[in-house]
Amino acid sequence: MRAARFYNKGDIRVEEIPAPSLGPNQVIVDIEWGGICGSDLHEYLVGPLVINPPERPHSLTGEHIPVTLGHEFCGRISQVSAEAGENGWKVGDAVMVDPRLNCQKCEVCLRGDDNVCSKWGFLGLNGGGGGGAGFAEKCAVQSRMCYLLPESVKLENAALIEPLAVGRHALNNSGFEDFSKLNILVVGGGPVGLSVLHNLRAKGAGKLYVSEPTAKRQQQTREFADEVFNPLITNVAEECRAKTNGAGVDLVFDCAGIPAGLKNGMDALRIKGTYVNVAGWEQPMVIPLQFFMMKEIVLRTSMAYNDKDFRDVVEDFVAGQYSLPHITSVALTLLGKFEGAEKMITSRISLDDLAVKGFDELVTKKDDHVKILATPKSSLLAH
Amino acid sequence: MRAARFYNKGDIRVEEIPAPSLGPNQVIVDIEWGGICGSDLHEYLVGPLVINPPERPHSLTGEHIPVTLGHEFCGRISQVSAEAGENGWKVGDAVMVDPRLNCQKCEVCLRGDDNVCSKWGFLGLNGGGGGGAGFAEKCAVQSRMCYLLPESVKLENAALIEPLAVGRHALNNSGFEDFSKLNILVVGGGPVGLSVLHNLRAKGAGKLYVSEPTAKRQQQTREFADEVFNPLITNVAEECRAKTNGAGVDLVFDCAGIPAGLKNGMDALRIKGTYVNVAGWEQPMVIPLQFFMMKEIVLRTSMAYNDKDFRDVVEDFVAGQYSLPHITSVALTLLGKFEGAEKMITSRISLDDLAVKGFDELVTKKDDHVKILATPKSSLLAH
Repeated sequence: MRAARFYNKGDIRVEEIPAPSLGPNQVIVDIEWGGICGSDLHEYLVGPLVINPPERPHSLTGEHIPVTLGHEFCGRISQVSAEAGENGWKVGDAVMVDPRLNCQKCEVCLRGDDNVCSKWGFLGLNGGGGGGAGFAEKCAVQSRMCYLLPESVKLENAALIEPLAVGRHALNNSGFEDFSKLNILVVGGGPVGLSVLHNLRAKGAGKLYVSEPTAKRQQQTREFADEVFNPLITNVAEECRAKTNGAGVDLVFDCAGIPAGLKNGMDALRIKGTYVNVAGWEQPMVIPLQFFMMKEIVLRTSMAYNDKDFRDVVEDFVAGQYSLPHITSVALTLLGKFEGAEKMITSRISLDDLAVKGFDELVTKKDDHVKILATPKSSLLAH
Repeated sequence: MRAARFYNKGDIRVEEIPAPSLGPNQVIVDIEWGGICGSDLHEYLVGPLVINPPERPHSLTGEHIPVTLGHEFCGRISQVSAEAGENGWKVGDAVMVDPRLNCQKCEVCLRGDDNVCSKWGFLGLNGGGGGGAGFAEKCAVQSRMCYLLPESVKLENAALIEPLAVGRHALNNSGFEDFSKLNILVVGGGPVGLSVLHNLRAKGAGKLYVSEPTAKRQQQTREFADEVFNPLITNVAEECRAKTNGAGVDLVFDCAGIPAGLKNGMDALRIKGTYVNVAGWEQPMVIPLQFFMMKEIVLRTSMAYNDKDFRDVVEDFVAGQYSLPHITSVALTLLGKFEGAEKMITSRISLDDLAVKGFDELVTKKDDHVKILATPKSSLLAH
């Protein structure tokens, strides 16, 4: 089968490798769509980071470079192991895959915090798919990692469930349960910022503000927020105070990971507000003490997602679509409670073009894109 | 009356000034004991910081340099305004003073978070005592800032209530209510660390560990902790994991404010543990992302104390002493639930010697001292 494998930074090769064979409790998923994640791009630019070099194979899979990429993917089951069959899985089932690897044995996993298992990894970065992953024709997956999607859901947008789970975890780990009364600032309107925004809308949040410097991403986020500020020409903290009777916002999600965003975000918070970091940081994260201490800010951070987050997003993704079974043509374009999230998909390409039309395109035209999906099936592109 | 006034860094003068006159709702407190705080020392070394220079008078008091120092103080009421008298205050009442200044009008004050009122200050740093404060013979105080102490309580240790309230706020703002099952690391065994330790003991905490590099402070904290580690020769995080079946501690209180302590403390935390900063920072607070993000640590901070914290400490301070009314000689040396906290007092001096035997002593023999108390009454020293 064809698979896109990571050899080194700047070196991704689509090549012919053996198809995965079926193991116990597994199913084989024929991939329909896979999305390029920011972490994939990061590996392409300066990796290997999370990807394992030969001298440091992954603690659970034992695999290392070359590894097949792609951890945001959906498809249809083409082979079912006896154990998976007993659990009800059938050939032809449409599934979204939760690609996370964790030990499922430690105290941390057992209490539901499997996102921070000390052995965490991703199928699509750290092996574990029998040679396959999201950027291949097939992938072997433990059936417990599959979420069945009803036939009313078209798979063409389902790969978004994974990046949407990242935003959902940020909400679920914020310390808040009810967002309906809150004033919220999202710092950064890129893919992670949009994921947070769509989740806030799905959960029925109060007022949503976005801080984003580029015109393209201001445009991409504007219809999902109450107001979008350009931090290069506006004092975001003052704007937020003006919107909140001088108090400041209740909650900030940092989806940028830069010092100026941290400073503005903490400045914009009300006294005793909460700051949730959802970003990776390439520069040192230096806390602006004048805000952190004088306002007694609570600082949290969000790492990937856990089982509950993923399940929540699948349910919300499917929910709205079920509500319109008689208007099939409409239902097929809606994403349940995530209506509008499909606009995150800015390009669809063939797996064969992954390096040039996928990764290089994201490097050279970063702001033009949010999410690029690739498929190994040419018939899906013709559609 | 005599008063110790701050003119500039290194320049504290005990001089004769007019005694305070009584205003509405006020009482005049004749000072018995006042403690030197780390923040006083900080002003002495590199101030004015919180103290107001002439060009920046305090927003509530309008006062500026020279200001009378001393915000950890107790004494007896010598004059009572009509309003305070109506509220039950009498000449001779023994009182501990909550020295905090705040507006009592803003939304933040009204919901009980008066420690982070945007107009906060301290009587003893920012004026507000009619010329007096803790390092003077007298001070004018709003009666609502006074806490009545029963006659069974000797005033000689009562000034500790203020620094103990700092530790109490760190506990009350940690996100935990029950500490009895927790493994807790206190980073730094100085005055703030001891305050946190004594509060944890008063609240009945689980296992207490301390990280402290100096021999003197290891000795001062040892009897109040389950174990004291020297971070210069021991890997504190490994020791903490060894004590907790490999998991790490549940809660860290940072009472040091240095990068090595932050790194060790976050390393020592369990996955999803809580880190509470109680320290002032002179260096940039750079977050160790490998721990913060990979363990999803919750980072909080603690700023002074609020009404509830102060009231809690007064109650706990008084509680144990009431329980022994028939053994007066014992009751007088115990500090209620804070038994042993009196050992924080390492020297008692005359107000007249404040600069040399107080501030200079703390600068040159830092590790020999925790808390130095001064009194304007020579009879109390003879005792």
